[in-house]
Amino acid sequence: MPREDGRRPDEIRPLAFQSDFQLHPLGSVLAVCGRTRVICAVSLEEKVPSWMKAQNVSGGWITAEYQMLPSATNTRGEREVTKGKLSGRSAEIQRLIGRSLRAVVDLEKLPGITLHVDCDVIDADGGTRCASITGACAALEIAAKKLVDQGVIPEWPLKARVAAVSVGIVNGEPLLDLCYTEDSAAEVDMNVIMTDQGRFVEIQGTGEEATFSDEDLEKLLALAKSGLKQLFAEQTRITGRANG
Amino acid sequence: MPREDGRRPDEIRPLAFQSDFQLHPLGSVLAVCGRTRVICAVSLEEKVPSWMKAQNVSGGWITAEYQMLPSATNTRGEREVTKGKLSGRSAEIQRLIGRSLRAVVDLEKLPGITLHVDCDVIDADGGTRCASITGACAALEIAAKKLVDQGVIPEWPLKARVAAVSVGIVNGEPLLDLCYTEDSAAEVDMNVIMTDQGRFVEIQGTGEEATFSDEDLEKLLALAKSGLKQLFAEQTRITGRANG
Amino acid sequence: MPREDGRRPDEIRPLAFQSDFQLHPLGSVLAVCGRTRVICAVSLEEKVPSWMKAQNVSGGWITAEYQMLPSATNTRGEREVTKGKLSGRSAEIQRLIGRSLRAVVDLEKLPGITLHVDCDVIDADGGTRCASITGACAALEIAAKKLVDQGVIPEWPLKARVAAVSVGIVNGEPLLDLCYTEDSAAEVDMNVIMTDQGRFVEIQGTGEEATFSDEDLEKLLALAKSGLKQLFAEQTRITGRANG
Amino acid sequence: MPREDGRRPDEIRPLAFQSDFQLHPLGSVLAVCGRTRVICAVSLEEKVPSWMKAQNVSGGWITAEYQMLPSATNTRGEREVTKGKLSGRSAEIQRLIGRSLRAVVDLEKLPGITLHVDCDVIDADGGTRCASITGACAALEIAAKKLVDQGVIPEWPLKARVAAVSVGIVNGEPLLDLCYTEDSAAEVDMNVIMTDQGRFVEIQGTGEEATFSDEDLEKLLALAKSGLKQLFAEQTRITGRANG
Amino acid sequence: MPREDGRRPDEIRPLAFQSDFQLHPLGSVLAVCGRTRVICAVSLEEKVPSWMKAQNVSGGWITAEYQMLPSATNTRGEREVTKGKLSGRSAEIQRLIGRSLRAVVDLEKLPGITLHVDCDVIDADGGTRCASITGACAALEIAAKKLVDQGVIPEWPLKARVAAVSVGIVNGEPLLDLCYTEDSAAEVDMNVIMTDQGRFVEIQGTGEEATFSDEDLEKLLALAKSGLKQLFAEQTRITGRANG
Amino acid sequence: MPREDGRRPDEIRPLAFQSDFQLHPLGSVLAVCGRTRVICAVSLEEKVPSWMKAQNVSGGWITAEYQMLPSATNTRGEREVTKGKLSGRSAEIQRLIGRSLRAVVDLEKLPGITLHVDCDVIDADGGTRCASITGACAALEIAAKKLVDQGVIPEWPLKARVAAVSVGIVNGEPLLDLCYTEDSAAEVDMNVIMTDQGRFVEIQGTGEEATFSDEDLEKLLALAKSGLKQLFAEQTRITGRANG
Repeated sequence: MPREDGRRPDEIRPLAFQSDFQLHPLGSVLAVCGRTRVICAVSLEEKVPSWMKAQNVSGGWITAEYQMLPSATNTRGEREVTKGKLSGRSAEIQRLIGRSLRAVVDLEKLPGITLHVDCDVIDADGGTRCASITGACAALEIAAKKLVDQGVIPEWPLKARVAAVSVGIVNGEPLLDLCYTEDSAAEVDMNVIMTDQGRFVEIQGTGEEATFSDEDLEKLLALAKSGLKQLFAEQTRITGRANG
Repeated sequence: MPREDGRRPDEIRPLAFQSDFQLHPLGSVLAVCGRTRVICAVSLEEKVPSWMKAQNVSGGWITAEYQMLPSATNTRGEREVTKGKLSGRSAEIQRLIGRSLRAVVDLEKLPGITLHVDCDVIDADGGTRCASITGACAALEIAAKKLVDQGVIPEWPLKARVAAVSVGIVNGEPLLDLCYTEDSAAEVDMNVIMTDQGRFVEIQGTGEEATFSDEDLEKLLALAKSGLKQLFAEQTRITGRANG
Repeated sequence: MPREDGRRPDEIRPLAFQSDFQLHPLGSVLAVCGRTRVICAVSLEEKVPSWMKAQNVSGGWITAEYQMLPSATNTRGEREVTKGKLSGRSAEIQRLIGRSLRAVVDLEKLPGITLHVDCDVIDADGGTRCASITGACAALEIAAKKLVDQGVIPEWPLKARVAAVSVGIVNGEPLLDLCYTEDSAAEVDMNVIMTDQGRFVEIQGTGEEATFSDEDLEKLLALAKSGLKQLFAEQTRITGRANG
Repeated sequence: MPREDGRRPDEIRPLAFQSDFQLHPLGSVLAVCGRTRVICAVSLEEKVPSWMKAQNVSGGWITAEYQMLPSATNTRGEREVTKGKLSGRSAEIQRLIGRSLRAVVDLEKLPGITLHVDCDVIDADGGTRCASITGACAALEIAAKKLVDQGVIPEWPLKARVAAVSVGIVNGEPLLDLCYTEDSAAEVDMNVIMTDQGRFVEIQGTGEEATFSDEDLEKLLALAKSGLKQLFAEQTRITGRANG
Repeated sequence: MPREDGRRPDEIRPLAFQSDFQLHPLGSVLAVCGRTRVICAVSLEEKVPSWMKAQNVSGGWITAEYQMLPSATNTRGEREVTKGKLSGRSAEIQRLIGRSLRAVVDLEKLPGITLHVDCDVIDADGGTRCASITGACAALEIAAKKLVDQGVIPEWPLKARVAAVSVGIVNGEPLLDLCYTEDSAAEVDMNVIMTDQGRFVEIQGTGEEATFSDEDLEKLLALAKSGLKQLFAEQTRITGRANG
Repeated sequence: MPREDGRRPDEIRPLAFQSDFQLHPLGSVLAVCGRTRVICAVSLEEKVPSWMKAQNVSGGWITAEYQMLPSATNTRGEREVTKGKLSGRSAEIQRLIGRSLRAVVDLEKLPGITLHVDCDVIDADGGTRCASITGACAALEIAAKKLVDQGVIPEWPLKARVAAVSVGIVNGEPLLDLCYTEDSAAEVDMNVIMTDQGRFVEIQGTGEEATFSDEDLEKLLALAKSGLKQLFAEQTRITGRANG
C-alpha cells in the first residue's frame, strides 16, 4: 500500500530548516519537516531556577516549553491559556524536549544561566515533537556559539547533537517519519531520540490499540536510525558546524 | 532629531505581507510591518456562540484572539498559559481586533457560522496590534472569498476594508508608525483604525505621562490617514482584490 | 426623538458625589451620576511594586482595580472570582482608570508608596468607567491632602484634575452622557478623558456596528467638553479645593 | 474593663438598616450594625441549579455569595479574583448564609426558581457574617413580597425569620456583638443564628487559643438571645411586616 | 426505629485506629470509625509561614489539609485538582481541623517549625471530619513524641487531647455518631469537639431544613460527651500515652 | 556493589497485593511493591465522554487519574490542588496508565460505559507508576468480573493482562525494579509495560544525564521480562483468575 505522499516506507519527508528565523532570541530555527513547521527559539536568562539555588546545585539549566498555535491544526484548537492550564499533552512534550536537550549538554558549562527553549508549532502534520527536538538542538548550537563568542560562557557546552524521529506500524507495515494521517491510523507509534554518536537518549514506544513484538521493535529502531542520519545532516547544514 | 531607522516623521515602515502562510486555516496572512511580524489566521466554525443562540440573534460572529510568542520580545516574555490566565494587555487587544473586524462585516451575511481570528506575534518591534488588525482584515477577505466560492455563504460579507496604524508624539514631535523604542519613549500614543472609505472605526489616544491638545490631535490624525493609505494598498496587493 | 429620561442631547445626568463614604480608606467617594453609583476608594501601601524595585525606578505608583457587584446590573452578573479570573472588560477598564490617574500625578512626589484605587460599581446604568475615573480623582485628592497633612509625602502630587464622560451617536444623533439603554443602542460610543486644563488624557472612540466621520468626531468632542466642565465643578464641590 | 465604644457587655451596636438600597435587585438592604455595613441583595433567576434537575428535586433554591470590598478592611485586602479563587473564609461564610436562609424557607414554595443572595461588605468592623444573614433575611422578605404580589410564586415562602449575632469571651468576660478589636482579642467566638420563634438554626462556637465550659456556653447563649430580639425588631421595622 | 447497623441511639461505631500507617511522615494514623477510614499524617517543616515572619509572631504553627480520594464515596467524586480549586466544603473542613489542633497545642513550644497535618479520606461513611480530627490529634502526639525525643523541640507541646464526634436528630430522635445514610436524613447535624479535660473546643450545630430547641441542644451535647470518652480511650490505646 | 536492601540485580521487591481494599469502588486493589504502596480503584460511570458522543464512536472508555498523597514522599509534597493544577509529571503518568489499560481492553465490549481508574500513592519508594499500572489492571479485572456477573456488560472485555516494571542502569550496572534512591541515582531509567502474552504495550527509556547503547537496551529488556513474570503471578493470585 503506497503512502499518501508517495514516499517509500523508509523515506523521511523533505527537510528545509531555516536559521535566524526570529528577531530577538539568541538562537532561532524554523524546523520544516515536510508540511510540519515549528519555530524553535533559545533565549538567555542570567540566573538559574530557584530550586537549583535552594539545593545548591552548580552549573546552569535548560528548560523547554511547547505550544501549538490554534491555527496549526486541521480543526482549529482551543488555546490552552483560554482553558487556564497547559494540556497534559503539551506538558508531556515539553518535559521530553527539555530532558532530551539536557542529555547532550554539560550543564556545568552553563554556569549561572538558564536557557529557555520555546517550540511553537505553526503547522502541524505529524511529528511536531520530533521536529521540535531536532530544531531546538540546532537553535541551541547557534545560541551556544554566540555565548562562547561573546565570552558569556567559557567553554563549548554540547557533548553531542540530539535529534528525534517518529516511526510506527501502520496497517502492519513499519514506516519512517509518520505524517498526521499515518500517525492517526498507526497501531504502534514510537519516538526515537538519539545522539549523533549513535546512542539512545530516549525511546518512547506506544501501542494505543495494539501491542508489538521484539521483532517489531528491532525493525522500528533500524528505520529510525536511518532517518536520524538525515536529520543530523540537516543540523550540520543549518548550523554550519561539522558536529554538535 | 532623526528616527533610529532613518525614516522621515511621516514615513511608514516597509510593508511585506505574505498570504497563505499556514497550512490549515481558511485564510492566513503573515503581516510584516518593518521588523514586526504577526501571523493572522481565520478559521471557520460551523456554529455560533451560545449567547447568540440564547438571545436568538440571527447571522454569525467574528471573534479574535491575540498572543505573543514568548520569543517575540526583546526580553523573553513568560507564557500567559503558565500564569494561568490571559494578561490584561492581551485581553484588551483581542477585544479591539474583534470589534474592528466586526465593524466592517455584515454579520447577517455569515449565517450560522463563527470566524475565529488568531493573531500570533512572531517578532515584536512596536505596532503589533495594528499589524494584527491590518493582517487579519486581509486574511478575512481571503477566507470570505473561499466561503463564497464554496457556497458556504451566499453573499460577500465585507462592507469595507479596515486597517490600523499607530501614531504618537515623541520628544514633542508627531511621528507615524512607531517602532518599539519610539513607542516606549512616546509622550502620547494613538492607534487609529479606519475603513478604506475614510471613516473611523476606532480611535484610541493615550497620554501615559503626558496629555495632548486639540492641535496635537489634528496633526496625529492627519499622519495616520497618510499611513493608512499605504496599508490599504498592501491589502489590495496581497488579496488581489480592488477593495474590501 | 426625546431621551428616555427627558434630557436634552447636551445635558449631563444629575451629579451627587459624596465624600468619606467608607470607614477605612484614606480617601473614599461615592460617585453618583444619575442612577449610576460607584464606590471609589484610595488606600495607601508603603512600598512600590516589585517591577519598580527591579528596574530601579524612583518615585511611587498608582494602580486601579474595577469590579461590578453582581447585583449592580439589570440581570444579575456572575462574580468574576467564580469564573476564576478577571473578565476582559474589567481588565481593560481598570487599566484605563490607572493610566488616567497616573497622567495627572507626578509619581516622583509619591516616593516609596503605592496608592491602590478601588472602583466598585453598586448600581450600573451606563458610564460606570467614566464615573469611576471622575470619582477616583476626587478620592485621590482627598487622600493626597491627608498624606501631605500627615507629612507622609512632602509635596502636592497632582498636576491637574482628570474627569471622564461618555458621548455617543444614537439613531444618528450625538448625545452627551449615555445611560445604559442609550449605550446599548449607540452606533458610536466614545469616552473622553481630559484634565481641568483642557488637555486630552485619553480618547476612546468605538463604532461596534458603525463607523464615524471627521465631522462626527468634532461634534462628539464638543459635547464631551461641555459635560466635563460640570464634572470638574462637582469635584471642586466634593473636595473643597479650587482645583486639582 | 469598659468596652472601647462604651457599650455595656450585653449591649448591641446601633442598628440602622436601609431598604431598597440598590437599583436593580428584587430585594436589597444595606445592613448597618454599628460601623459594619453590608449590602444584601436578592436576585431572581427563573431556573433551578442543574443538580436539582439531574436529581429530579422539586421546588426551588436559595444560594448565597459573600465578598468583602478590598477597601472594607483596616488594611486593604487583596481581591479574591486576583488570586483566582475564593478564600476559604469567604467560601465558609457564604455556605453558612445560604444554609441559614434555606432553614427558614419552604423551598417547595419557590417552584422552578433560584434566589441569588449577594452579601458585599462595604465597611468591616466585626460581625460581617451576622450582619449579612440578618440583612439578607430582610432583603429576602422584600423580594418574596414582590414575587407573591406579581404572581411569580403562589404562596408566602418564609416559615420564620432568621437573624444572627456574635457573642464571645474577651478577657474572661462574655460580651454581646463583638466589634473588630474585640473579635481579634476574643478567647472564644460564637455565632448564634436563630429564628424569631426562638429555635436554633446554627450555633458555631470556636476557641482558637482557648476552650470553654458548659457554663460559658450557657452565658453566651443567653447574651445572644437578648441581642437577637433587637435584630428581629429591626427586620420588622425595615420590611414593614409584623413577622417573617 | 432501629439504626441500619443495629446500634443503640447512644452507641458509637467500632473504633480501630492504626498507628505508623505510612512510611515517611513523622506521625501517621489510620483512623477507622466503623466503615469510615481516614489517613492522618503529620509532617515537619523547619520554618514558619511567611505571615508569622512578617508579623514577627514567635513560636510555630500547625496547619491542616483535607481531601477525599475520588474513590472514597459511594458515587465517585471528581478530583478537586481537576476543577482547579478546593471545594468550599474541603476548605471549611481543613480550617476546622487546623483550629481544633491549635486549640490544644502551645504554639510557643514549637519554635520555628510548622507541622503539616494531612487528612485523606480513603472510605467515607459519614463523620469524616470528626475522624480526621481525632486521628490527627493521635498522629500529632506520635509526632510530638519523636520531636521531643530527638531534641528538635525542648518541651511537650500539647496542653490536652482533642477529639470530635457527630451527633444529630434523625426522624426526631437524637443519635450518636451518624453514618452516611443517617447524616443524609438528619434534620439537625452537630459536630462537637472537646478536650479530654471536658472543655469545648468547637461546637457546630446546623439545621439545614429544620431548627432545634434548647432541649434538643442539651440532649445532643450529652450524647456527644459519652461518645468522646471512647474516642479519648482509643487515642490512649494507639499512642501508648495516658493522656495528651 | 550491593543494593541497599540486599537484593540481587535481577531481583524484584516483595509483592503483597491486597484486593477489595476500599468500601465503595467496583474494583479496588492495594498494590504493594516493596515499600511502595498505591491504592488502585475502578469506578463505573454509565455514560461515555462527550467527545465519543460528538464523534459518534461506539463502545466505551477507560480513563485514569494519578496523584500522590502529600504525605507519601520523603519530604512532604505540596498538594496539586493548592497550586490549582495538575503537575506535568502527574499528567504524564495518568495518560500512561490510561493508554496501558486501553491497550488490553476491547472497548467495544464496554458499550456506553466509562471506567474511571484512580491510582493514589500512599507510600512512594520508587516505581509508583509501574505499581499503579499493575495494580490497576488487577482492579480492572475484579471490576470486569462484577460487571459481567451483574449483566451490565455482556462479554469479558480484557484481551490480555498488562503489568509494568522499571529497570535502569545505576553506576553502570543494569538493575531490576529500582527503589527511590536507586532511581534518583540512575543514569538510565526505563519503564517496560507488557502483556502476559509477551508483547510490548509501551517502552519508555530515558537518559537524563546519560545515554545508552543497543546492548544496554537488550540487557534492560531481558531484566524487565523476568520481573514482569512475577507481577503477572501476583495478579493471578489476587484476582483468582488464571489469566487476564
